[in-house]
Amino acid sequence: MFGAVIHAPGDVRYEERPDPVILEPSDVIVRTVAACVCGSDLWRYRGISPVSRPSPIGHEFCGVVESVGEGVVSVRPGDFVVGGFNPADNTCAICRKNAHANCLHRSYYDGCQAEKIRIPWADGTLLVTPSMPAPDLIPSILALSDVMCTGWHAAVSAGVGPGTSVAVVGDGAVGLCAVLAAVQLGAGTVIAMSRHEARQKVAEAFGATHIIAERDEAGIARVKELTDGVGADCVLECVGTESARLQAVGCVRDGGNIGLVGVPHGELPVDQLFWRNVGLKGGPAHVRAYLPHLLELVLARKIDPGLVFDLELPLSEIGEAYAAMDTRRAIKSLVRP
Amino acid sequence: MFGAVIHAPGDVRYEERPDPVILEPSDVIVRTVAACVCGSDLWRYRGISPVSRPSPIGHEFCGVVESVGEGVVSVRPGDFVVGGFNPADNTCAICRKNAHANCLHRSYYDGCQAEKIRIPWADGTLLVTPSMPAPDLIPSILALSDVMCTGWHAAVSAGVGPGTSVAVVGDGAVGLCAVLAAVQLGAGTVIAMSRHEARQKVAEAFGATHIIAERDEAGIARVKELTDGVGADCVLECVGTESARLQAVGCVRDGGNIGLVGVPHGELPVDQLFWRNVGLKGGPAHVRAYLPHLLELVLARKIDPGLVFDLELPLSEIGEAYAAMDTRRAIKSLVRP
Repeated sequence: MFGAVIHAPGDVRYEERPDPVILEPSDVIVRTVAACVCGSDLWRYRGISPVSRPSPIGHEFCGVVESVGEGVVSVRPGDFVVGGFNPADNTCAICRKNAHANCLHRSYYDGCQAEKIRIPWADGTLLVTPSMPAPDLIPSILALSDVMCTGWHAAVSAGVGPGTSVAVVGDGAVGLCAVLAAVQLGAGTVIAMSRHEARQKVAEAFGATHIIAERDEAGIARVKELTDGVGADCVLECVGTESARLQAVGCVRDGGNIGLVGVPHGELPVDQLFWRNVGLKGGPAHVRAYLPHLLELVLARKIDPGLVFDLELPLSEIGEAYAAMDTRRAIKSLVRP
Repeated sequence: MFGAVIHAPGDVRYEERPDPVILEPSDVIVRTVAACVCGSDLWRYRGISPVSRPSPIGHEFCGVVESVGEGVVSVRPGDFVVGGFNPADNTCAICRKNAHANCLHRSYYDGCQAEKIRIPWADGTLLVTPSMPAPDLIPSILALSDVMCTGWHAAVSAGVGPGTSVAVVGDGAVGLCAVLAAVQLGAGTVIAMSRHEARQKVAEAFGATHIIAERDEAGIARVKELTDGVGADCVLECVGTESARLQAVGCVRDGGNIGLVGVPHGELPVDQLFWRNVGLKGGPAHVRAYLPHLLELVLARKIDPGLVFDLELPLSEIGEAYAAMDTRRAIKSLVRP
């Protein structure tokens, strides 16, 4: 089969790789229908995270099950499935607390930007759609394998609920999905911080009540203007840089909460957070905990997270899929074998 | 009038001071019925925080109103009142979010270990009891002015709720009150970490389901044994030292929450918390938010936080009240003028 392999920063190639095979009884092999490039894949593409050897890459997918291990009970060949980037057994003591990202059997896979993939802990990781989904729903289903659940996780971690005021730091696909999540969770004010027209439009389509282009001190001042002068109840930090974290700290009100899903780079002023009674929670998303509800919303056409994909290419053009995101010509690239 | 003045580390004196007077229309003067020594007062007594000049000290009290400023509407002379260590107007945009510790008009007072005290923002800060309380309830009412609300704040900040498992780090008065709070909030398992018999007994009286004497790695292992091998849903950190914080991080399960009320000294492994999806929240307690409910519980004799006082002295012996706590001969000292 063919799939993407990252050889070095800036160098992702479409090349022949061995077909995946079932290694454990809980594995399945999925034939990819659609996959995509994650902002976190760009860490290696940009040389910020190391690439020590040529490696298959990608962790977002949806597809059709081709074969199943002998221990798999809930998934059959021919099923259309979507699953999270962080496999979970959905039965351990941590999964029972709905903290699936930290499953006691958690693992991580790369290599989903390919014609086929092996998924471990299939019973816990994958969700089957009731029937073959309409083709136009594929992007939104694909978005559930990471970005939509990650945006949702930011909102849940920050305690977004009915009537809360929310500011979202970051206008990448995750930040935009966080806007959608906040709206769905009943937030009263949802402020998207973005200065890019295409992203502003998606934020608007997702229900943002305010879009502000200002950053840093000016951005913080605008958020306070929109929130009784005190800052947002919940701030969703969807970037991970030190400046984004400080932006989040500046935008949250005393006693409020920051939901963190940007992979952390840089320190946090923990003592300031203490004296201000600001809560902090987040991490990798509990995808399996959120999938059933979100898949229902997608299949009922109540949410359309697939709007974050503004570039679609054949898998063979995976290099361009990366380059377009790297240069911010695309919010997020979808590829199909 | 007479009151306590800290002159230097280890040197708290009972001496004559000017009577307090009303300075702002929102002030009242309270004649102290009981006051006490806080663990945070010991920072100066132990020379960890500086004492730059002789200063009145103490921020926990209950008493009878003597006179009121012209703007005060909810409190009258003769009322029995209890109030928080952090005055709040109870009307600002932050108080309306129940984050009273961070009131936009917040202030802080010292000097409650005295015959009389001036309380600012009296309408927002003080709660009046329906009638003169029975004498045996005074310690429990006094406990509401800080430690019980602070223990409650740890539990609320960590999201303690019905059926949760809770570990409490710290067996001072706040830690013991955190045990009581967790029990009241419906926790299923409440683990008190203490190796002092007198404190263990109070924890037991407050409803701790388990008491463990082990610390550090052994303590973490015991907590995990009692919580399905994964750690507690909620850990209440009621000390503030670096080792207590690391104990808390070790005892919490992935996806769980740490409630912080120990004044922070030392850093936190923020990146580890991120990858483990552990939440962190806390700070000075929102006393005024919790007081109405907790006062009701005390007056109905449903909780008895006054058990944390195991030494009672006349105010004139305030030096000994400090010395007994400093040497851990007393959990917490109550003084009466």
